[in-house]
Amino acid sequence: MRMVDIIEKKREGLALAPTEIRFVIDGYSKDEIPDYQISAFLMAVYFQGMTAEETAELTMAMAESGEQIDLSKIDGIKVDKHSTGGVGDTTTLILAPLVAAVGVPVAKMSGRGLGHTGGTIDKLEAVPGFHVEVSEEQFIDLVNINKLAVVGQSGNLAPADKKIYSLRDVTATVNSIPLIASSIMSKKIAAGADAIVLDVKVGSGAFMKKIEDAQALASTMVEIGEKVGRKTAAVISDMNQPLGFAVGNSLEVKEAIDTLKGRGPADLHELCLVLGSKMVVLAGKAQTETEAHAMLEEVIENGKAVEAFKTFLSAQGGDSSVVDHPEKLPNAKYKIPVLSEEAGFVKGIAADEIGTAAMLLGAGRVTKDSVIDLSVGVVLHKKIGDKVRKDEPIATIHSNIEVIEIPKMRILQAYTLSGECTSALSLIKG
Amino acid sequence: MRMVDIIEKKREGLALAPTEIRFVIDGYSKDEIPDYQISAFLMAVYFQGMTAEETAELTMAMAESGEQIDLSKIDGIKVDKHSTGGVGDTTTLILAPLVAAVGVPVAKMSGRGLGHTGGTIDKLEAVPGFHVEVSEEQFIDLVNINKLAVVGQSGNLAPADKKIYSLRDVTATVNSIPLIASSIMSKKIAAGADAIVLDVKVGSGAFMKKIEDAQALASTMVEIGEKVGRKTAAVISDMNQPLGFAVGNSLEVKEAIDTLKGRGPADLHELCLVLGSKMVVLAGKAQTETEAHAMLEEVIENGKAVEAFKTFLSAQGGDSSVVDHPEKLPNAKYKIPVLSEEAGFVKGIAADEIGTAAMLLGAGRVTKDSVIDLSVGVVLHKKIGDKVRKDEPIATIHSNIEVIEIPKMRILQAYTLSGECTSALSLIKG
Repeated sequence: MRMVDIIEKKREGLALAPTEIRFVIDGYSKDEIPDYQISAFLMAVYFQGMTAEETAELTMAMAESGEQIDLSKIDGIKVDKHSTGGVGDTTTLILAPLVAAVGVPVAKMSGRGLGHTGGTIDKLEAVPGFHVEVSEEQFIDLVNINKLAVVGQSGNLAPADKKIYSLRDVTATVNSIPLIASSIMSKKIAAGADAIVLDVKVGSGAFMKKIEDAQALASTMVEIGEKVGRKTAAVISDMNQPLGFAVGNSLEVKEAIDTLKGRGPADLHELCLVLGSKMVVLAGKAQTETEAHAMLEEVIENGKAVEAFKTFLSAQGGDSSVVDHPEKLPNAKYKIPVLSEEAGFVKGIAADEIGTAAMLLGAGRVTKDSVIDLSVGVVLHKKIGDKVRKDEPIATIHSNIEVIEIPKMRILQAYTLSGECTSALSLIKG
Repeated sequence: MRMVDIIEKKREGLALAPTEIRFVIDGYSKDEIPDYQISAFLMAVYFQGMTAEETAELTMAMAESGEQIDLSKIDGIKVDKHSTGGVGDTTTLILAPLVAAVGVPVAKMSGRGLGHTGGTIDKLEAVPGFHVEVSEEQFIDLVNINKLAVVGQSGNLAPADKKIYSLRDVTATVNSIPLIASSIMSKKIAAGADAIVLDVKVGSGAFMKKIEDAQALASTMVEIGEKVGRKTAAVISDMNQPLGFAVGNSLEVKEAIDTLKGRGPADLHELCLVLGSKMVVLAGKAQTETEAHAMLEEVIENGKAVEAFKTFLSAQGGDSSVVDHPEKLPNAKYKIPVLSEEAGFVKGIAADEIGTAAMLLGAGRVTKDSVIDLSVGVVLHKKIGDKVRKDEPIATIHSNIEVIEIPKMRILQAYTLSGECTSALSLIKG
């Protein structure tokens, strides 16, 4: 088999055989196939796509390229959740204790990563004492006892995907549905998930700008799941504005606590219940999503959800009293309102701009070595459809530096106001 | 400027600005842009093409990436000729003295190269004593005096093209018209041609299998020539069978001598007159191709063409007596007829197969370091339209080894016979 022939076959729009896909991934993993052939191949995939069979084979080849986590010692069906990335997306922090409270085992591997704010682990580290340094044995015990534990992600999960992703990033081949879908699914499968719930974001603040693309990505991932024997469900949710109100690590933890107590932002609450219901059904803890939905509402109302969060924090060294005393979480020195310069109705909020404002305040990493300030960020007061008066605060900046002109300008620019009343967007798109 | 943005722009089908094309070629030449970005870019070009402006800019950027030959000390308009490659293509050996005989200066840089037979220089070296080791000064003097000289090609002509071609070869991006056209034209321009005549081959034995592709390549190259101020003309000629009868170095030299004497194969004679007429017109030595054609016929008839060849050979150390005594050229030990196993009319001759047979006998280089046997090759006796009886020789193998079963099988397989009479193909397609 020669790589050049495989590139040509794909260039001509033909479907590759499983052995050919394995040849590509194995060869690249072992440095036997050079970057320049893989990048030409990826560009051919960009133009010619891949069949469902090819995409599933690619996913499994990447999943099997490194360590594969064995969660078989954990009782029950392990359901993982993945979001394609949004701004102010606190769902994981809420969903994990929420579904654990109804008996779904959550064995979460999470990352830090680059971005507007930190990853799930960074956010959890806003809780004093919380750590993810637990052995594999402890991790499994914790999930079996508490139904919930979070550890750092192994560096060796789906290394072929990591290598290919780095190459895609510099060769303009990121934006290809089979490549995105196989990248996401390979990591979830390597992490040992029996079932996967996907939250595909769509809108101006998301990677997928158009609903058709989001639908195509969602259905491609569900199809991969079916072909490789992992129950998979997908939700398409709106990212034309940040989710919830808070963007920033400590600020998002507070918002997660509020939501677990039943008094969080409506959109965040709704999305968590939709995603959570699918997780509960896939885990076999409810027959229908309606039933699952009621179970989740119940554990929020009766306090079991927030209790699960406390137990989880304590089990990993965290001070669970923050749940009732969120003022114990890192607090920024300055809280500066951003006043609207005009009046009108909010028509849109560029989520990317809000995220960038938070990052500029220190909430996120610019490079791998950046140190995150867990206390800073942005809290929005107005969302799409809301009426805004001139000089009314549309947001509050939480900062440890006094000079916040640039983040402030970003926030003001993020908001589009209209003279006419705009109806709020529907959150769940499919 | 970032390479990833340029790749994306091309991927989206947008035309690149001249500065962007220069950025790509300069960056790659200086090893500032890695192979993997160039290969992704080339695949994007494969799918999205290039405008005439982009192709012309790419050509000039590659032409200017290394040494540029200055032929200004040679009087007159220097016309170069390029063929896209065929089997048994002896035209250069004939055309050079033919047009020199009517006063067109031919300052030819030629190569050895890989292939079924050697390059022009290898073929000329079949003439005892002939060499291409002449200084630049001598070269220019020779062309000014004799109107003809041949030197080896500089290793540093269009190095960017060389680098890109190597990459295209292993990334399935060879077959793109703007990339083929700019590659050919950049080398001709760097070699100092004022005007260029192109022979684009089409058919089963050529790189371009379809007439539409050959036409597109021809018109792309003519358009490049116009845009960069080089008069350019193209001929599309048939390569559904080898050109002439001889395939092999010494054998082709003999055939070239025959053609210069007016008794060569009809197709080779015709193609040389068509290409030569265009060269004579571009060089300003005739007003019309009809006029040029008559001039060329005349120098063949009155012996001036063959005389020009003798003068040229002597001037570069060659024994010009071979022209009247071709038996002095290297001769193979064995001359073995290949007998037809059936009767019929020749419908097709797979030129590639004949070429491979010649290469297997030792006429061509398999790797850069192969030693060529100048004496061996294949002489065809039957061409398309000819009637063949069972056991009649269709070709003769010239070999220095006795066991020639494989080349013989290749030759027999190359011929397709038909029960019905097939008309001969027209050689000139456009």
